[in-house]
Amino acid sequence: MRPENGKKTPISSLGEFRLIEHLTRWAGTNHSSTVKGVGDDAAVIRHGHRHTVVTTDLLLEGIHFNLVYTPLKHLGYKAVVVNLSDVYAMNAVPGQVTVSLGISGKFFVEDMEELYEGVKLACEQYGVDLVGGDVSASMTGLIISVTAVGESEPEKLVYRSGARPGDLICVSGDMGAAYLGLQVLEREKRLYEADRSVQPKLEGYDYVLQRQLRPEARRDVVEFFRKEKLVPNAMIDISDGLSSDLLHICHRSEVGCRLYVDRIPVHDEARKVAEEFSMEPETVALNGGEDYELLFTLPGAQGEKIIGVPGITVLGEIISEKDEKWLITSGGNRVPLTAQGWNQIR
Amino acid sequence: MRPENGKKTPISSLGEFRLIEHLTRWAGTNHSSTVKGVGDDAAVIRHGHRHTVVTTDLLLEGIHFNLVYTPLKHLGYKAVVVNLSDVYAMNAVPGQVTVSLGISGKFFVEDMEELYEGVKLACEQYGVDLVGGDVSASMTGLIISVTAVGESEPEKLVYRSGARPGDLICVSGDMGAAYLGLQVLEREKRLYEADRSVQPKLEGYDYVLQRQLRPEARRDVVEFFRKEKLVPNAMIDISDGLSSDLLHICHRSEVGCRLYVDRIPVHDEARKVAEEFSMEPETVALNGGEDYELLFTLPGAQGEKIIGVPGITVLGEIISEKDEKWLITSGGNRVPLTAQGWNQIR
Repeated sequence: MRPENGKKTPISSLGEFRLIEHLTRWAGTNHSSTVKGVGDDAAVIRHGHRHTVVTTDLLLEGIHFNLVYTPLKHLGYKAVVVNLSDVYAMNAVPGQVTVSLGISGKFFVEDMEELYEGVKLACEQYGVDLVGGDVSASMTGLIISVTAVGESEPEKLVYRSGARPGDLICVSGDMGAAYLGLQVLEREKRLYEADRSVQPKLEGYDYVLQRQLRPEARRDVVEFFRKEKLVPNAMIDISDGLSSDLLHICHRSEVGCRLYVDRIPVHDEARKVAEEFSMEPETVALNGGEDYELLFTLPGAQGEKIIGVPGITVLGEIISEKDEKWLITSGGNRVPLTAQGWNQIR
Repeated sequence: MRPENGKKTPISSLGEFRLIEHLTRWAGTNHSSTVKGVGDDAAVIRHGHRHTVVTTDLLLEGIHFNLVYTPLKHLGYKAVVVNLSDVYAMNAVPGQVTVSLGISGKFFVEDMEELYEGVKLACEQYGVDLVGGDVSASMTGLIISVTAVGESEPEKLVYRSGARPGDLICVSGDMGAAYLGLQVLEREKRLYEADRSVQPKLEGYDYVLQRQLRPEARRDVVEFFRKEKLVPNAMIDISDGLSSDLLHICHRSEVGCRLYVDRIPVHDEARKVAEEFSMEPETVALNGGEDYELLFTLPGAQGEKIIGVPGITVLGEIISEKDEKWLITSGGNRVPLTAQGWNQIR
């Protein structure tokens, strides 16, 4: 009883980001307790003198994960961690998660126990409680919906929109390894599918595989900020890719940026694997995604507190010209920074 | 690379409720801000002097809804409302929702606009803000994940576990109509599939169809409680079915109950439709589900505040013997109350 397809607009013509912007453009912050609505890593709600932070993520088999090479325990761990990462990206501290599952007929109780072992491990590791969720049947495949709740003093919350000209662009950890781990897994899957007697060769890929299958959220960075009494001007976690996520900050903050390619941190193993796949390590680092590192901007005057801190890299600076988003190559040339991030609806 | 099925346990051997209990039995309330975890309509979190309530629901095409007869706008409305219903069932006031979608290739931008019209209408109707969510591709069908956030003064929150012997068992509205609406839609679908020239006959089924396709959450009942300074001892919203949800209250409260069959409110149209389908109206009212009415218990001494209030019915009483859950028939016989609610994983 639905209308047949006349001249409807394919979803691919908009893409994921523009579709959600298009669909939610009416959404305001009308309720007295709503501090921040659509468009950041998490929503912010005022309940008393501390703010509540809420974020949610939907993980779908065949789209966000492939069970051929993803152990269910790792998947449960990752499903929780990527949501905690969104809470940390607000400079908030997560306290609770809910996990809801849609399960198709191919799964057994033991499979779900394995998945929940990963959920439990992540809860223990990050000191959060599992407080809800349910399970229901699904027609095809596994569906995981996770919501994370955190809190913060209002004045410590950090949005995507706070970047100011002169800010240093900083990042934790290194980039590109998770994407390369996925390439290794996909390659071994193809070889196995072509010849079932082939054993997957995964030795020597420890770091990139771990980054793909069992990422961690940067709780330590948020704790470092609190210890050093640092509050970034803007922050986002890198899920789509460094370039795409930096462009989100620029867009929301109405500023431009200069990003120095040769400063982008890439792990030695990732560099080696990129070359094995005939990819430029820096291109992978810019566009790979799923790093779950924190990308943040700090006033230049606070640079001394961050420069030289192990595991934190200054990548460039924010500039006032909002139409100027530049990548500065090692030769000193500038090329426009574009989002080639992992956009799932192409 | 997953183990082959040796002697694994089918999920059907446990069922939805026992599976989620089984998987989450390790989950405690360790974090200092966790007030209430797994096992109620919503989780409760302490952030300052007001408590935050969080609930989440996953709706899957082919399991929870059928797009052959469900207009997308109604679906968007219902997806929000069923979550708000969970917040009201805590005697809390919802303020925000997030909506995440998984969309397969058969959908177009206009379809999602229609769905979001329903989301918007529900947000306006209930005075809540849409504050987040995202969209991604899905392999098959439509997936809707909604999270609702509400708040309450700590002393007004009502759990499933608070029922005490001597409490009156009360319910808002009437039961069974949503289930009957679904039967009508399924019948017309079968007729249409057998002969595509048949036009669906939906006249005369207005009430049961509306209860199925566009349910409302009982905001008015929670407002009535606040106005009358009433705080129920226990409360749940009826999603699984009156009998199943009353058993949830008894189980969590460690009490028994007596439920008088001839007091169960059934709408005239629902009674007529039940007879058309050769069903006992009371059986449908007990087991149908998706009513989204509030089932609550009040100390007997407060009975005078509730008896005679239009739209509220006293169905029976809570008793101390926790192994005695009785249905009292119109002839005065007693039969054990059992959950035949709509359990999706059988």
